Amino acid sequence: MTPSPALDLTAARHVLDSQPFSRLVGARVTAFGDGGATLEIDVREELHQQNGFLHGGVVSYAADNALTFAGGTVLGPHVLTGGFSIQYLRPATGRTLRARAEVVHAGRRRAVVRCDLSTVDGDGAETLCAVAEGTVLPVATP
Amino acid sequence: MTPSPALDLTAARHVLDSQPFSRLVGARVTAFGDGGATLEIDVREELHQQNGFLHGGVVSYAADNALTFAGGTVLGPHVLTGGFSIQYLRPATGRTLRARAEVVHAGRRRAVVRCDLSTVDGDGAETLCAVAEGTVLPVATP
Amino acid sequence: MTPSPALDLTAARHVLDSQPFSRLVGARVTAFGDGGATLEIDVREELHQQNGFLHGGVVSYAADNALTFAGGTVLGPHVLTGGFSIQYLRPATGRTLRARAEVVHAGRRRAVVRCDLSTVDGDGAETLCAVAEGTVLPVATP
Amino acid sequence: MTPSPALDLTAARHVLDSQPFSRLVGARVTAFGDGGATLEIDVREELHQQNGFLHGGVVSYAADNALTFAGGTVLGPHVLTGGFSIQYLRPATGRTLRARAEVVHAGRRRAVVRCDLSTVDGDGAETLCAVAEGTVLPVATP
Repeated sequence: MTPSPALDLTAARHVLDSQPFSRLVGARVTAFGDGGATLEIDVREELHQQNGFLHGGVVSYAADNALTFAGGTVLGPHVLTGGFSIQYLRPATGRTLRARAEVVHAGRRRAVVRCDLSTVDGDGAETLCAVAEGTVLPVATP
Repeated sequence: MTPSPALDLTAARHVLDSQPFSRLVGARVTAFGDGGATLEIDVREELHQQNGFLHGGVVSYAADNALTFAGGTVLGPHVLTGGFSIQYLRPATGRTLRARAEVVHAGRRRAVVRCDLSTVDGDGAETLCAVAEGTVLPVATP
Repeated sequence: MTPSPALDLTAARHVLDSQPFSRLVGARVTAFGDGGATLEIDVREELHQQNGFLHGGVVSYAADNALTFAGGTVLGPHVLTGGFSIQYLRPATGRTLRARAEVVHAGRRRAVVRCDLSTVDGDGAETLCAVAEGTVLPVATP
Repeated sequence: MTPSPALDLTAARHVLDSQPFSRLVGARVTAFGDGGATLEIDVREELHQQNGFLHGGVVSYAADNALTFAGGTVLGPHVLTGGFSIQYLRPATGRTLRARAEVVHAGRRRAVVRCDLSTVDGDGAETLCAVAEGTVLPVATP
């Protein structure tokens, strides 16, 4: 569609919106470009675990997807996350989960990306709740 | 509630069912005990990414939760996943995602757990689609 | 030199012996082929940390290198470890450290490999002391 | 020996110097305190792999140990690395390997630490060659 291999924020939002699971979770892209991408998810009861905190699986989904989008800013639109590691720091509460990913290194065959995951309260204050690191790989254009 | 620190399959199902996000995803516990736990999720369109495969975030959710449950078989019911790493091997298709986790080592302070994630087709044939490894930590009883 | 892309045990030993750091550590290849590789290191005081246990850096070296060699059994001789994760299970004591790596999945662009690290006592009994998981990448022939 | 649970740079150097493997590799602590620690290793032929680059096992040793020392700045002197993940970004050349670790989060039971590994050339210019992330655990005082 676009002659450029790069995505912009509008195109990134279109990609996210074409992921049924991202719609189910309720994720949105709030920043995209220059080696970085930010995803946000408003916390709601459906995303909780049994103790009223955000489920770790929501946090790991956000890490996985933010890594992929950040990788897409340098490798183009046809990418996937090859793998990642995540460490949970504290129970996630707050209004919004924010996953901010930054490319650390990009080669031809893969990008290495780090991601900070924070919860944001009603005053906009961020609390870091998890950190992740992963690799993003280009995939053959369909 | 129960005098025993250990969970059985029925109790594990009750815990999973008390996680709103696990209900949203549609996960079930199919095996639990002796250092191992298996979670399954029937694949449906809502869990896809943009190319019709299971979203990586669903696979990472399953890894995270299967690790926690396997850890719970040795550390008792009050546990959480401290962190994990996951490698995706191939696009996940098929009828059901199966996450089979096994405790590799259990100390007092943490369990180290591995998880194989496979898709299962209509004939019951499994295809490995991801592998994960993580730590499970006991938490203070609320 | 060899028309075959595959290494055999003799060739693998030659590669290890051409790594100055592996000679400094004192590693040897004891099995190689069919998606698996085993490295062994005799424990000596020079490889200790401050409490008389094997230094974690020796264990991580063994994991890194066993992963690479196992990847080499399926991807050919020109490979490197792209990254790995390791969990230490207990202090490593014993006569010999044994790192046994097995390819979990091999594609064209990378192999995903798991590694069990054990110490072996004088009677040949193994005690698992760490587990690792990583990716091995083909590199362009020099 | 010291009534304080905290180490200072001098004490940290003493700990490193009491690790035979760190002496074999030739590591030194160049910064220590406030949640961070830096280790340096002068590159020499003995630390190479077969193609003349620094062996990945040296880089992973440096990551492991820098993580432990950074964790020690917040958890006290009796700590060990529970596990870590590392991604190699490019072949490591240069005069010196520098591993700079920073605590991301410290709780009572563990610290989560990130580490940047760079090579430094003769002019002092740094090139990032690997990134790592791990957990540091307190251990019972001997």
